[in-house]
Amino acid sequence: MSRFFSKKYSGLTPYVPGEQPKDMRYIKLNTNESPFPPSEAVVKAAEEAIRHGELYSDPECLAVRRALADRYGADIDEVIVSNGSDEVLNFAFMAFCDEEHPAAFPDITYGFYSVFAEANRIPYREIPLREDFTLDPRDYAGTRETLFIANPNAPTGIALPLPVLRSIVDSNPDRVVVVDEAYVDFGGESAVPLIHECPNLVVTGTFSKSRSLAGARLGFAFGQRELIRDLDTLRNSTNPYNVNRMTLAAGTASLAEDERNRENCAVIAENRERAAGQLKELGFRMTDSRANFLFASHPRIGGEELYRSLKSRGILVRHWKSERIRDHVRITVGTAEQMDALASAVRDILEELT
Amino acid sequence: MSRFFSKKYSGLTPYVPGEQPKDMRYIKLNTNESPFPPSEAVVKAAEEAIRHGELYSDPECLAVRRALADRYGADIDEVIVSNGSDEVLNFAFMAFCDEEHPAAFPDITYGFYSVFAEANRIPYREIPLREDFTLDPRDYAGTRETLFIANPNAPTGIALPLPVLRSIVDSNPDRVVVVDEAYVDFGGESAVPLIHECPNLVVTGTFSKSRSLAGARLGFAFGQRELIRDLDTLRNSTNPYNVNRMTLAAGTASLAEDERNRENCAVIAENRERAAGQLKELGFRMTDSRANFLFASHPRIGGEELYRSLKSRGILVRHWKSERIRDHVRITVGTAEQMDALASAVRDILEELT
Repeated sequence: MSRFFSKKYSGLTPYVPGEQPKDMRYIKLNTNESPFPPSEAVVKAAEEAIRHGELYSDPECLAVRRALADRYGADIDEVIVSNGSDEVLNFAFMAFCDEEHPAAFPDITYGFYSVFAEANRIPYREIPLREDFTLDPRDYAGTRETLFIANPNAPTGIALPLPVLRSIVDSNPDRVVVVDEAYVDFGGESAVPLIHECPNLVVTGTFSKSRSLAGARLGFAFGQRELIRDLDTLRNSTNPYNVNRMTLAAGTASLAEDERNRENCAVIAENRERAAGQLKELGFRMTDSRANFLFASHPRIGGEELYRSLKSRGILVRHWKSERIRDHVRITVGTAEQMDALASAVRDILEELT
Repeated sequence: MSRFFSKKYSGLTPYVPGEQPKDMRYIKLNTNESPFPPSEAVVKAAEEAIRHGELYSDPECLAVRRALADRYGADIDEVIVSNGSDEVLNFAFMAFCDEEHPAAFPDITYGFYSVFAEANRIPYREIPLREDFTLDPRDYAGTRETLFIANPNAPTGIALPLPVLRSIVDSNPDRVVVVDEAYVDFGGESAVPLIHECPNLVVTGTFSKSRSLAGARLGFAFGQRELIRDLDTLRNSTNPYNVNRMTLAAGTASLAEDERNRENCAVIAENRERAAGQLKELGFRMTDSRANFLFASHPRIGGEELYRSLKSRGILVRHWKSERIRDHVRITVGTAEQMDALASAVRDILEELT
């Protein structure tokens, strides 16, 4: 930290993304990427876009917003796109919270929420999940805080049924509820249709997971037009050309073949269930994940040890040291072959323990 | 504005980018884009990167930072990259200003500075340029404010000699001076080498203009490592994957052929001088622009009328309504053919006035 750094930010602890090692080829099951590359049509669209890279991208992002609006049954004014969904989540913290309007979210959830709150000097409350990591809707009824709920949740993968979510939204009519659907396409149910009835609901999504575009950075948010206009005011006051030409083109092309994306998600969901079965046979306990990852623990090996042992065998998974989840690892669901390699490595590790 | 929008931002007036019309093909001389498309090598690099778009981009952006460090004779820890230079300029306002540490910049300069200040609730002072739009260095000596100086300045194109800039930096040892070099490659002199001697200097740049990559969104900042670490703390607290894979690859490939970029800049500088000659013959007054645009006024026609008349003839230039510059238009320098078309259109417009 330099002596010029504003005191406002001097206590900030940045978010730590999953490791992206460059030293060898790992089976990478640690950052919830898709095992499927983008299609040839998406590649082609991005390539055509860079051929005119000398021109600015469309600051209104009309083509991809129109495609998103069509896909989700909303109006173009009810959607905004961003440089990954992290960016629009940050805008939501800025727009709908402040010192007098605190945020609240589960104690076990996407680790960036607390960083966004701290970066914007927003007071926040972490609401403990139940012992089994499920969310008790009563804890969220009429809290008068701006709520951030990942659905399915990360890193647990547990999904909240839409009627339950709706009741939370309805019970907080004077505060915004932000539903983060980064993982919804793998088995959750999207809340986007609820925006038409709920003037206090914002639903965010991303092309990173189910649409194989983590490296392109494309996120979005749906909500009634006044809410979207608020988010857009912040976008235009910080970075109006926030999404580049290639990403806009790739995203639009990807939506044109959403059937293909859905098939990929179905394969991943199938691989998830198969891998969950293999791990259960090996004695693992798991949450009921509806996402593209498993959240697992084993009575005979700690999370950190398992993470390290897998890494030494060339398989990366994610581990956190925080109290409630340090016995767990989060395992991204990849191809059937990758999950077989994982199961086999885990079997070896457990055998070596005896 | 929704009733949920934080009061913090309710008075915010967003930046207004130059128009990007979709209704017809204009000769587009309004947003300082390069007339030259990216090279085949840059296209190829971006295409290869999207083929693995399912994987996150490198959050450390090592390859392009290494190439930038080499190009500018600095260490990799002395450079950060961003989603366009607007993003890193915003980080600089956040990092080095706050309520007790106001910002200052010329009254006529890049219009986004005041928006960044307002978005971050930073008090700021606009220091009037002289009548001829030159900057009086005495106005910047020891001001104890965090200074933002575009060099060359926009929209005037006027460049400050490096020793003058250095004296301003030295006179403010307790505050950071941010030098925005978006246009430096067209005839200015870069201050990046000064970072080694000036612990309070940050120099920002962009691939948008001289490297034909406005549509890819790639900006950067150089400074001593503690300053860069401050900016990086904000990056990692808001959007650690801020630059996508295609843009990282395109930027790295572009730096590998910086000779080509320099040749393009030389052509643009040549076209600028030629166009300036043509406009002078037609009675225009102009600043001494070292950038890829001209800032011109004519005693017989107002800026807005000229802008409108050119637009109706299919040529877009930029006009602002603010008091001091409303008689002017800013004309991006394009190809020789485009500048001939401009001169010819202007000739017609002036003839019709008589």
